[in-house]
Amino acid sequence: MYITDIVKRALAEDIGSGDITTLLTVPVDVLSEARIVAKANGVMAGLDVAAEAFRLAGSGVGFAPCMIDGATVEPGTVIANLTGPAHAILQGERVALNFLQHASGIATLTRHYVDLVAHTKAKIIDTRKTTPGLRRLEKYAVICGGGRNHRFNLSDGILIKDNHIEAAGGISSAVMAAKRNAPHTLKIECEVTTLIQLDEAITAGVDAVLLDNMDVDMLRQSVELVAGRVVTEASGGVSKDTVVSIAETGVDLISVGSITHSAPAVDISLQFK
Amino acid sequence: MYITDIVKRALAEDIGSGDITTLLTVPVDVLSEARIVAKANGVMAGLDVAAEAFRLAGSGVGFAPCMIDGATVEPGTVIANLTGPAHAILQGERVALNFLQHASGIATLTRHYVDLVAHTKAKIIDTRKTTPGLRRLEKYAVICGGGRNHRFNLSDGILIKDNHIEAAGGISSAVMAAKRNAPHTLKIECEVTTLIQLDEAITAGVDAVLLDNMDVDMLRQSVELVAGRVVTEASGGVSKDTVVSIAETGVDLISVGSITHSAPAVDISLQFK
Amino acid sequence: MYITDIVKRALAEDIGSGDITTLLTVPVDVLSEARIVAKANGVMAGLDVAAEAFRLAGSGVGFAPCMIDGATVEPGTVIANLTGPAHAILQGERVALNFLQHASGIATLTRHYVDLVAHTKAKIIDTRKTTPGLRRLEKYAVICGGGRNHRFNLSDGILIKDNHIEAAGGISSAVMAAKRNAPHTLKIECEVTTLIQLDEAITAGVDAVLLDNMDVDMLRQSVELVAGRVVTEASGGVSKDTVVSIAETGVDLISVGSITHSAPAVDISLQFK
Amino acid sequence: MYITDIVKRALAEDIGSGDITTLLTVPVDVLSEARIVAKANGVMAGLDVAAEAFRLAGSGVGFAPCMIDGATVEPGTVIANLTGPAHAILQGERVALNFLQHASGIATLTRHYVDLVAHTKAKIIDTRKTTPGLRRLEKYAVICGGGRNHRFNLSDGILIKDNHIEAAGGISSAVMAAKRNAPHTLKIECEVTTLIQLDEAITAGVDAVLLDNMDVDMLRQSVELVAGRVVTEASGGVSKDTVVSIAETGVDLISVGSITHSAPAVDISLQFK
Amino acid sequence: MYITDIVKRALAEDIGSGDITTLLTVPVDVLSEARIVAKANGVMAGLDVAAEAFRLAGSGVGFAPCMIDGATVEPGTVIANLTGPAHAILQGERVALNFLQHASGIATLTRHYVDLVAHTKAKIIDTRKTTPGLRRLEKYAVICGGGRNHRFNLSDGILIKDNHIEAAGGISSAVMAAKRNAPHTLKIECEVTTLIQLDEAITAGVDAVLLDNMDVDMLRQSVELVAGRVVTEASGGVSKDTVVSIAETGVDLISVGSITHSAPAVDISLQFK
Amino acid sequence: MYITDIVKRALAEDIGSGDITTLLTVPVDVLSEARIVAKANGVMAGLDVAAEAFRLAGSGVGFAPCMIDGATVEPGTVIANLTGPAHAILQGERVALNFLQHASGIATLTRHYVDLVAHTKAKIIDTRKTTPGLRRLEKYAVICGGGRNHRFNLSDGILIKDNHIEAAGGISSAVMAAKRNAPHTLKIECEVTTLIQLDEAITAGVDAVLLDNMDVDMLRQSVELVAGRVVTEASGGVSKDTVVSIAETGVDLISVGSITHSAPAVDISLQFK
Repeated sequence: MYITDIVKRALAEDIGSGDITTLLTVPVDVLSEARIVAKANGVMAGLDVAAEAFRLAGSGVGFAPCMIDGATVEPGTVIANLTGPAHAILQGERVALNFLQHASGIATLTRHYVDLVAHTKAKIIDTRKTTPGLRRLEKYAVICGGGRNHRFNLSDGILIKDNHIEAAGGISSAVMAAKRNAPHTLKIECEVTTLIQLDEAITAGVDAVLLDNMDVDMLRQSVELVAGRVVTEASGGVSKDTVVSIAETGVDLISVGSITHSAPAVDISLQFK
Repeated sequence: MYITDIVKRALAEDIGSGDITTLLTVPVDVLSEARIVAKANGVMAGLDVAAEAFRLAGSGVGFAPCMIDGATVEPGTVIANLTGPAHAILQGERVALNFLQHASGIATLTRHYVDLVAHTKAKIIDTRKTTPGLRRLEKYAVICGGGRNHRFNLSDGILIKDNHIEAAGGISSAVMAAKRNAPHTLKIECEVTTLIQLDEAITAGVDAVLLDNMDVDMLRQSVELVAGRVVTEASGGVSKDTVVSIAETGVDLISVGSITHSAPAVDISLQFK
Repeated sequence: MYITDIVKRALAEDIGSGDITTLLTVPVDVLSEARIVAKANGVMAGLDVAAEAFRLAGSGVGFAPCMIDGATVEPGTVIANLTGPAHAILQGERVALNFLQHASGIATLTRHYVDLVAHTKAKIIDTRKTTPGLRRLEKYAVICGGGRNHRFNLSDGILIKDNHIEAAGGISSAVMAAKRNAPHTLKIECEVTTLIQLDEAITAGVDAVLLDNMDVDMLRQSVELVAGRVVTEASGGVSKDTVVSIAETGVDLISVGSITHSAPAVDISLQFK
Repeated sequence: MYITDIVKRALAEDIGSGDITTLLTVPVDVLSEARIVAKANGVMAGLDVAAEAFRLAGSGVGFAPCMIDGATVEPGTVIANLTGPAHAILQGERVALNFLQHASGIATLTRHYVDLVAHTKAKIIDTRKTTPGLRRLEKYAVICGGGRNHRFNLSDGILIKDNHIEAAGGISSAVMAAKRNAPHTLKIECEVTTLIQLDEAITAGVDAVLLDNMDVDMLRQSVELVAGRVVTEASGGVSKDTVVSIAETGVDLISVGSITHSAPAVDISLQFK
Repeated sequence: MYITDIVKRALAEDIGSGDITTLLTVPVDVLSEARIVAKANGVMAGLDVAAEAFRLAGSGVGFAPCMIDGATVEPGTVIANLTGPAHAILQGERVALNFLQHASGIATLTRHYVDLVAHTKAKIIDTRKTTPGLRRLEKYAVICGGGRNHRFNLSDGILIKDNHIEAAGGISSAVMAAKRNAPHTLKIECEVTTLIQLDEAITAGVDAVLLDNMDVDMLRQSVELVAGRVVTEASGGVSKDTVVSIAETGVDLISVGSITHSAPAVDISLQFK
Repeated sequence: MYITDIVKRALAEDIGSGDITTLLTVPVDVLSEARIVAKANGVMAGLDVAAEAFRLAGSGVGFAPCMIDGATVEPGTVIANLTGPAHAILQGERVALNFLQHASGIATLTRHYVDLVAHTKAKIIDTRKTTPGLRRLEKYAVICGGGRNHRFNLSDGILIKDNHIEAAGGISSAVMAAKRNAPHTLKIECEVTTLIQLDEAITAGVDAVLLDNMDVDMLRQSVELVAGRVVTEASGGVSKDTVVSIAETGVDLISVGSITHSAPAVDISLQFK
């Protein structure tokens, strides 16, 4: 239902009151064959969304995927084959590709980070820094790339940040307030920026700590201080250049906003035969 | 109405069944002051969307922008000041920033391309390669960055591509079919890949030509051949490395997909005082 | 998707909380045959919408059209045959007929105008004076009647009217402002009411002129003055009585609001066998 | 809420991705005054809808009506005065006028029928032959014209038609089935085409009869036979030419489909000062 | 369409961003068999809604009902059999059961009241005191339980209550105002609390009276006074303890709010085989 | 936004095409005062929803609450005062009361359970057995009654049930699969029905156990076995009669479906002054 919803919106956006060019130049009964082909290296994500785009663009389009989400492609790899009315294929084309390029871009960048830290125990996780309206697809793409998901939104995870701490009058009171009334299904994570805060959070009984914007030295000390008692998440200042040294500090998780908010699209095209 | 619609969807996505952390740790009557601050260089876009996010996140938030869309920011620039209930600010924060970072990312990358070709007559224009559901915002961000808009969707421009040409039996017949029945408010643009096709298109009476994936030499020859009779648009293979030489061929327009589909987010944060 | 949307709304409007009469008097398992029959002369439009109404009104209705959109009917012409559950047919009946009568009314009136000017080169085109919510169907019906479409809405055509001219400080500056920033896919049309304005518009470089509320003499002079340089559209005061003399002035297009806003419905009924 | 809904849809339909002409030619801060003026005789309906169109088209438009729904206008009558941003007025203009012209057209034609039969006791009522999506507005316009409403949809009235009668095995059994299980808040009306059917329906206990497609003689006989025991509604073949003689037969109600499905729009325009 | 709508909303509410437990623990290709079993006595209602829940929860679920709405179940009765992907069954389960338990609860309580008064002529009817958003389903469940429906909403019945009477200046004037302009398809019911009001309402020409909060003696006197001239509805203070004596006063209808607003759910479970 | 959404749906459902009775009998300009009064003992919930119902029913209604959610009322307690147009108050009345009665019914029943176990450490929690479409309101009402919330839906809690266990090949493998890939923000709860399963679950590393349908003896043994290592939730067979003895076994949580799916409405009425 979610896929249908985002595809319908995208088709309405892209088709407007009608595909005037195709209506004017292509007879309505022309049948075509086409294929979707990668033009760059990447990791696939979003094939079901592309399929839905062609299904909703017009009846009679056959969409036969040659890949599955998570698979690696290179320039020239055939991703899917299409047959059906030229009108429907032309009207679904841009929407299908826009979804596919976007989701695959996220999967590809995620895979890159995952590979960089593969020699450590650190997992790459996403954030809530996603494109408005597409979070579910983007978090799915992170999985396709080998990453893991942080909480989906504000309701399925407790993450006490600096502003909560200040309003509650300190880490201890914030954590205890949360523990007192939190649903028993949710863990409690707390953001800390110093070793003293870290110690206070653990003492207060958190399940996980977000080590915010710490340098590599402080991260290493934090991991030692934690000594496996709670989950450790490093956050802030993570880039391709820094992620390896961060991972090597021994943290459990590294959250990376750029895998969703700044992933370049993978170049993918549709070619008529 | 469009802004309200995309913001409502984003808030529903991000808040889910409720901001559990804030509910547990922050008293409901806490009032706060905060500011939105740039943490990187960039060009602003989307301030109205950010304002709407706070307006819809809860009553009583005052949002006072310090910048206008299109303005340049650098690390530390204050973008807007906020006052109001901490609950509402915390619930609108991520959505507002996600929109702002995304739109400003597009404006920033667009500005970069625009500046690169400022010594030529070429204009940077966008494409339909946008994030599904956000095209209107993204095309607006392109304008903020100094770019221009290509057609919005399939209904407000006639662009005859290779597949239309093939189905219609050639450039001449495709163009003539379009001219015969097109609304008198739309121009006709035709994709060409060779000088011969270019000549055929002009003879058939197009208003503009999309010079697809031509190298710089062929682009220059095309511009000479056109000799100002129709609008020329270069497309394909455009990057920061190639855009200057493409622009210097004398084309009127250069369409760049990456300004919308691959623009990195601008780092912007919200800080409580 | 558009058809499904407007039909769903219409069915919800017409069925309310349930078809109480049918529920009370007709056993749920009765199967029926019925046919849709014209009771007046007309030009068909909207058969796909009628089909969708029966499809959505209940499962199992077979709808077999005997005509295509654009065809001419007279009293007694069978338009379509239906078989299926009586409940579904009765619940789809009124909605299907309301759409069919309305769209065919527009096609019929359009055809009348088109026939009246068939000996001239003038084309009959529609306007934005359509029934709110049904523009796309109505503009399609105009095509079925042999007419042509003006721009669909405010975003897919540039039409500079008197108020724009005044705000911009004259025709020249309005047209130049438009030319400077308009998407290269859109032509520029300007409304003029005098020959002097007409001259100024052409000089400023418009692609088309809307000759507003001119009498036949002035229209003829305008056509002469234009001399084929731009498209000419006559507008205002067009009726069945005046359209022939307007067309004979040599204008390219005649826009007629009444074909969409004042077309009487074609009488069409559904008869059970 | 209904008005807001239909106006939002209409604005989305008419504005598309933006009012490109106004954006290109009118500075965003221009304030204007305008008025809505009748250009033909008519009866007003829909002023609240027009007001909502300007309210939703942009903030800051003042809409001051000079008339109320149901009032009579003639060419030159000022219907409302407007002040506010030119952009908002221009973007709401067409939608507001389309609603106003359509609804007033229905009120005007209804008033015409009502006046024709004013010397009789017959009331003019509407039908379900309305424009899909706009029934509520159209039935309101009928009231503005002095007419009365038949049932709104299939759920708020029991009207046993020929197909129900056939499926139920005759008038008596259909009526009795309805009486047995009908909500006690709904009356039962039955369609009859002969005096024998009429007698059967009355005997079976209907509250009202729809005298379908009877000529004037049979209508008069029906009224005599009924003798005030049930409500009589004449239907079918009603036109401006026949309505007087139908009304003079003494029927209580005359239902007229054309007042909603074939009412010509009233010419109304917006003029900037 | 109504069923699809309420089920989609319920699934979205219950699934959120995904069924995380099933995703983590059950392979995506597991096929299962399951059955829906009653765990208490009750009357079924809502089987179509349950079927729709599984249809929308994922493709490939077969839903084979063993009962029809209105049938009686006891602990252990198999209501339906299911086969299909475990993921889809698990995701549809709670929504299907929530609808089924709720609707069957209403049918069961209604049946209880209906049985209690089966020796009288009184019918049990529902009210507008329903769960927001589910009225249509709940009124259908009342029918499944053997009850009857009062008006569906404010538009399909005229019920003049104390506040209307006061505003209109008395029963006579309120009833006459209603009779003067009411659609001829609706009956007029008036609330009365004394015998004097009752007499006034009948004299004014109502079709039905709502005898509000009268004790059994006054109800009996009211029935005598009415003497079959209008429909009598007893309302207020109806419980399992009082309904029999109320029914034995001879009233036609007894409206019971609790059958919709306070019916306990029937215990129904889904068991995997 | 959620409140607005559910209220809009409820108003559309209850008003239909218009409040015909009020339109016919009450002049449009009548202003009234009214109050909402409890007619039974209860705990309030939903005042904001009632306020929204009057706000959306028509402009100009003032709603002044005298109570806050969670407060106790008895027959005669004034809950809120209203002033404004009679039309708007009458049109919002039923919707406001339906929400208020329903939510307060849940709060009231929850409070009853909470009071019964107040001498123990057990908390009363809700389930996903809620009314489709109203879960968020109902879970809020549970809080108003002093209860606690279990997970909101399938995405914000991991609860491994019998079917998951079977599909995964046992408790250990199910729990380990969940632990391996679960977001670090979610705890893992596992359903067990025997002491052996309980032991296996704890060993596998769950955070909480759902003790399903255990009798009081086994619950007590389970609590002893757990010895505070994980959270214990008793579920199944919970009623007013059994809840005390269940609570006295020492379990941490008792989940009660009936507080949401079978709570009788609190009798609340609106009285005009």
